[in-house]
Amino acid sequence: MSSVSIPTAEYAARVAAAQALLRKTDLDVLLVNSNEADFANVRYFSDYWPIFEMAGVVMPRQGEPTLLIGPESETYAQGRSRIPRIRKMVEYRETADPAYPGVEVADFRRVFEEVGAPEPKKIGIAGYLVTTLPILDGLRAAFPGASLVRADEIMVALRSVKSPAEIACLKEAFRISELAVDALLEQIRPGMTELQAVGIAQAVFYANGAEGEGMPQYVLSGKKSNQAISRPTHKVMERGELVQLNISARVDGYSSGVGRPICLGKMTPKMRDLVEFGKLAHEQTMSWMRAGVIASDVAKRYQQLFVEHGYGHNFLYGPCHGLGMIEVEPPWMEVISDYPLAENMTFQIDTFVQDVDFGLRWENGVRVTATGVEMFSNRNMAILELG
Amino acid sequence: MSSVSIPTAEYAARVAAAQALLRKTDLDVLLVNSNEADFANVRYFSDYWPIFEMAGVVMPRQGEPTLLIGPESETYAQGRSRIPRIRKMVEYRETADPAYPGVEVADFRRVFEEVGAPEPKKIGIAGYLVTTLPILDGLRAAFPGASLVRADEIMVALRSVKSPAEIACLKEAFRISELAVDALLEQIRPGMTELQAVGIAQAVFYANGAEGEGMPQYVLSGKKSNQAISRPTHKVMERGELVQLNISARVDGYSSGVGRPICLGKMTPKMRDLVEFGKLAHEQTMSWMRAGVIASDVAKRYQQLFVEHGYGHNFLYGPCHGLGMIEVEPPWMEVISDYPLAENMTFQIDTFVQDVDFGLRWENGVRVTATGVEMFSNRNMAILELG
Repeated sequence: MSSVSIPTAEYAARVAAAQALLRKTDLDVLLVNSNEADFANVRYFSDYWPIFEMAGVVMPRQGEPTLLIGPESETYAQGRSRIPRIRKMVEYRETADPAYPGVEVADFRRVFEEVGAPEPKKIGIAGYLVTTLPILDGLRAAFPGASLVRADEIMVALRSVKSPAEIACLKEAFRISELAVDALLEQIRPGMTELQAVGIAQAVFYANGAEGEGMPQYVLSGKKSNQAISRPTHKVMERGELVQLNISARVDGYSSGVGRPICLGKMTPKMRDLVEFGKLAHEQTMSWMRAGVIASDVAKRYQQLFVEHGYGHNFLYGPCHGLGMIEVEPPWMEVISDYPLAENMTFQIDTFVQDVDFGLRWENGVRVTATGVEMFSNRNMAILELG
Repeated sequence: MSSVSIPTAEYAARVAAAQALLRKTDLDVLLVNSNEADFANVRYFSDYWPIFEMAGVVMPRQGEPTLLIGPESETYAQGRSRIPRIRKMVEYRETADPAYPGVEVADFRRVFEEVGAPEPKKIGIAGYLVTTLPILDGLRAAFPGASLVRADEIMVALRSVKSPAEIACLKEAFRISELAVDALLEQIRPGMTELQAVGIAQAVFYANGAEGEGMPQYVLSGKKSNQAISRPTHKVMERGELVQLNISARVDGYSSGVGRPICLGKMTPKMRDLVEFGKLAHEQTMSWMRAGVIASDVAKRYQQLFVEHGYGHNFLYGPCHGLGMIEVEPPWMEVISDYPLAENMTFQIDTFVQDVDFGLRWENGVRVTATGVEMFSNRNMAILELG
């Protein structure tokens, strides 16, 4: 175990909190699903993090939940899950689609009965966006008459406001990401490929107590820097190119992301102009945030700032998205986001400025406070021209 | 670009081959889906590899296919996709579930019409195991009367037998994985955590031209070594423990996996006994394989070997699974697998031997030939006792 982690008792408290919310609905039972790429909802309750397979949690209105896994993960899950009752189901199998002759598996009738919901009329589905057709087929076969209702709002309510332990994990993840940015600023050179630079960050992650990367690392150079989401490649970085760095370590399930625009040489006047505007927009965004502010107000002011400064055509999205187990998680901050910010909600201030031949991102994680925000990362915020 | 990669022309040839298979069915159109964790089916046609979001390919019986992406990836996809026509759809959005006010997106009516299938009666779905409820909802809304049919067999037929370029990518991935195993054997020490050891492998991957890891690295020590699939943690590795190493680099979309049981000290007699039996079973499996052999025959002989040698209770699964873009991909080799092995099918020989307090895996990739198998990795196959 890393010294920074979610305490065992917190997993049980999360189950209790979910059940309290569930009892305010008319749902008979909640089925929470996750996959390998977005493992967050299931890991939130169980610490279980699927590999190859999917995973689920059957959450009753009261009593013990059950962890659902694929047929190959039993020993792994027994060693890891904070939810003691574990059932294997073919609906959660891996995409290589084995048939598993001879392996004893459960079906939805059995697992719903075991949690005390033998004949559910109304089943809530959380993780709706990762719930797959085999899971739907299994539910329909078990309960042809039941209605299936999207219930992601329960998970958003639980996960949006972070506990002290969650905030400690996030801070540790940002600490490690900043170490990796420091190493990159020292070692990155024209002639290196984007992926070689990623290797520099990876070495720092594992040497400093991360459990791995929080998302694929962005080292996007030259024209590629104008891609808002992307992947690094074998492209060779050239002198004078702007590089979009977004570096993300993960600690006990919690992600980070530190974004800096750096130039491998001297910035052109246009680059410097947009990099400086991006930094202004980044700092302005934080100045507008505190508990009680309506999220859409921040988003509207942000768009307006681009227009007022003559950069309307450089706006793509923004200004913020939720931060936690996934580097991009609900809630987003959009011009239609009507929720108020609350203390201990955590966001990425994700300031992306897009031009035709390049783009740039300033990004830092923050915690909302009564009076503003607390930054999780703040180093290397100067104009960065290397070499 | 790495020097080893899939040539551009091969992507077009794959589309043509898929359409030839599609025309042998009564499907009006094929919808191929992938997610971030299993990106293979979509990347096979497009080289596009989603991040955060999902992706799809609409494949008509003839004419140009369309790449489907989430609303945030347009610039990224334009820079990467070998399929020129790209459409953004909310059905493929990321799990953080933004609303994207103001972003123009397509729906299934439009994208099916654009490929010349405006009123499909029968829609094939490939990547059924990753196809999600929002995609189903979108299809039902667009074509309430159409029947949706699982059509994964088209992708399995296309992907099972590898081209020379695919085999070159696999060999390069195994070359890099073996370099990482060499580095681990030199540097791994009692007192190091499993994740620190993973960092050693990661550094080798990125320094030697991999695009990253092909799957999460297994460095599983002590009792954890008996987990057939698992993840490395901050567990400190102790002197005398058996460590299950399974090291996986990826090259241009193609995965590898080199599995070795190593002891951080002297093996107990029981460890050595099972490690030696595992090696025997591993070598025997390869000796049974060649083009024309029925897969289930290999699987049955493998199980029988465990029983005959008195290790029936140490058998968990095996002996082989398909290898390619995903380290575990179809087809599996199970006792009910009735297909014949064919030249240039590629497999992982995945020999897992499970005991109560430890487990071990010998794993290497192979290509099936007319007379046997060609190994993609074969170094460090001695009994490995370190320090």
